[in-house]
Amino acid sequence: MPEESEIISRLRKLARVTGEVLVGIGDDAAVISLPGGKDLIACCDLMVEGVHFRSEWAPPRLLGRKALTVNLSDVAAMGAIPKFAMISIAVPPGFRAEFIDDLYKGLFEMANASGVKIIGGDTSSSRDSLFIDVSVIGECESGRAVTRRGARPGDRIYVSGSLGASALGLSLLEDGFRLDGSNVVSDAIRAMSRHLAPEPRLQLGRALGEAGLATAMIDISDGLSTDLWHILDESGCGAIIHADAIPIAKSVRSFASDAQGIDALRLALDGGEEYELLFTVRPEDERRIAELLISSDVALTAVGEIVERGGLQLEREGSLEPVQPAGYEHRFGVK
Amino acid sequence: MPEESEIISRLRKLARVTGEVLVGIGDDAAVISLPGGKDLIACCDLMVEGVHFRSEWAPPRLLGRKALTVNLSDVAAMGAIPKFAMISIAVPPGFRAEFIDDLYKGLFEMANASGVKIIGGDTSSSRDSLFIDVSVIGECESGRAVTRRGARPGDRIYVSGSLGASALGLSLLEDGFRLDGSNVVSDAIRAMSRHLAPEPRLQLGRALGEAGLATAMIDISDGLSTDLWHILDESGCGAIIHADAIPIAKSVRSFASDAQGIDALRLALDGGEEYELLFTVRPEDERRIAELLISSDVALTAVGEIVERGGLQLEREGSLEPVQPAGYEHRFGVK
Repeated sequence: MPEESEIISRLRKLARVTGEVLVGIGDDAAVISLPGGKDLIACCDLMVEGVHFRSEWAPPRLLGRKALTVNLSDVAAMGAIPKFAMISIAVPPGFRAEFIDDLYKGLFEMANASGVKIIGGDTSSSRDSLFIDVSVIGECESGRAVTRRGARPGDRIYVSGSLGASALGLSLLEDGFRLDGSNVVSDAIRAMSRHLAPEPRLQLGRALGEAGLATAMIDISDGLSTDLWHILDESGCGAIIHADAIPIAKSVRSFASDAQGIDALRLALDGGEEYELLFTVRPEDERRIAELLISSDVALTAVGEIVERGGLQLEREGSLEPVQPAGYEHRFGVK
Repeated sequence: MPEESEIISRLRKLARVTGEVLVGIGDDAAVISLPGGKDLIACCDLMVEGVHFRSEWAPPRLLGRKALTVNLSDVAAMGAIPKFAMISIAVPPGFRAEFIDDLYKGLFEMANASGVKIIGGDTSSSRDSLFIDVSVIGECESGRAVTRRGARPGDRIYVSGSLGASALGLSLLEDGFRLDGSNVVSDAIRAMSRHLAPEPRLQLGRALGEAGLATAMIDISDGLSTDLWHILDESGCGAIIHADAIPIAKSVRSFASDAQGIDALRLALDGGEEYELLFTVRPEDERRIAELLISSDVALTAVGEIVERGGLQLEREGSLEPVQPAGYEHRFGVK
């Protein structure tokens, strides 16, 4: 199978953006111009057993929740509001009816909590793996969608929440820890919950979009380093981020201080599936971000600046080092 | 795993139709009211290796084409126009780059031929089977979407094209015949092509929708008998169809006359994946159907009438026999 990034670059060539398609393949979601002052937002995200999750460690309710969350996060990253969802699911033999019930329960819980209506879907059997594909349709005011391409030199780089816990949670799950196991401690539960039940930053994404405050935005699904690279690639500029400024999750700091071999900064830089928002802001709008923070349900941290060129560099104790995109790439395209 | 029809009835209860959702789970596609005189149509359809196709007999270009076609057919069955598509695909190890390229080639060919823009998607690896999930967004004039629920006693029942060839083609493929094999005869190629490369009835569906001519409509994916049952269930009435009137495909008639054990009528009644349109028309509109036929690219045949009750009955040589829905049900929901 060809590299996923190769497929997407070929697809982008095939599917040129024209007419009412304002943003096509290659951003968090597509944007379509509608008559009547609104733009339509559309995205889909696939979760495949053995690739994105293992059914032995992902409780079905959380799995259903997350399958929708990753799409809601994409819509949030466009500064838009999710409205409708469709769910396609293929179920291998041996899955009990309760598993499927719980999975849908999680999906509907997240849909209800975020004001999204489930309008359709498809279900099939499958030979071996469980497969969940969710499509979400959303909307925003005409011309307000935030893409990856608007960052300009001088812009400040912000990230919501804290980072690293999802990747830590994943490695704990891989090591045999379980959410309901007796072998877990509180920081481990926090990290695993972060991986299994991320929160979409809907309120923040919408507020940034409606206020026109973000010049570029993406959700952190592949990791801060890789996702910032996506913004730099699309915007045609470079960035410097400051090691000291990166908001490392408390559970990660605590694990790193106890356990050898855990590099907290590396987890925060490269860990994927955070579903925090990464966005850039014009320097003159920094005060408005501070105001937004007051009414926001999530922390916002300035982690660096957009510069003319030089790719992505990490400033640590006064010296700069290049950062390659090291987040894992199992997903691509509109994600 | 619970029965698919059970899952859908539970989902329909969870996802009640309210507000701007005019049609939710359980029709060929969902219908959403938009400001500005248009309704939005949305559907998705899953194709799973080993369930819906086998990669050893489905050329990848035709597979890509069909993955989109089955969705276009759903949009046509709503009397609407498809506009945009998203493609999610999970590819197991061992699939060559050319296979994926050809699959996308088929998808884009069908998209271009039908005026549909590919706006996004997702790609993943998978452990074992190839999965393709396509979502399509379309539109129609406000209030013009044709559902399964508008059939009334006295309405005439029509079907487009001819029936039975897809099921015959599938059984030939299962018996080892191949599209490019030397062991095939012309009728076999015709039947297998019908199964592997069905045509969406876009022009007809749109014309029926825009003219307000169909009181209920569905595409034949599960088989004439099962899909007519869907209309009867949703519309709360019965139907009589006439054995002599059912348009049996030429390849099916020809095979049935040569081969023992092939029941041509049964194939036409119960064979799925035809993607012909099945619709009902008020008796006073029959003349308008005749006019439509002149400009249509496909045959239309009156096969029966909607009656008050009595389920679905087949009239054969003057006597009536009940018909159970016997089409296969591997897909459900919005399909």
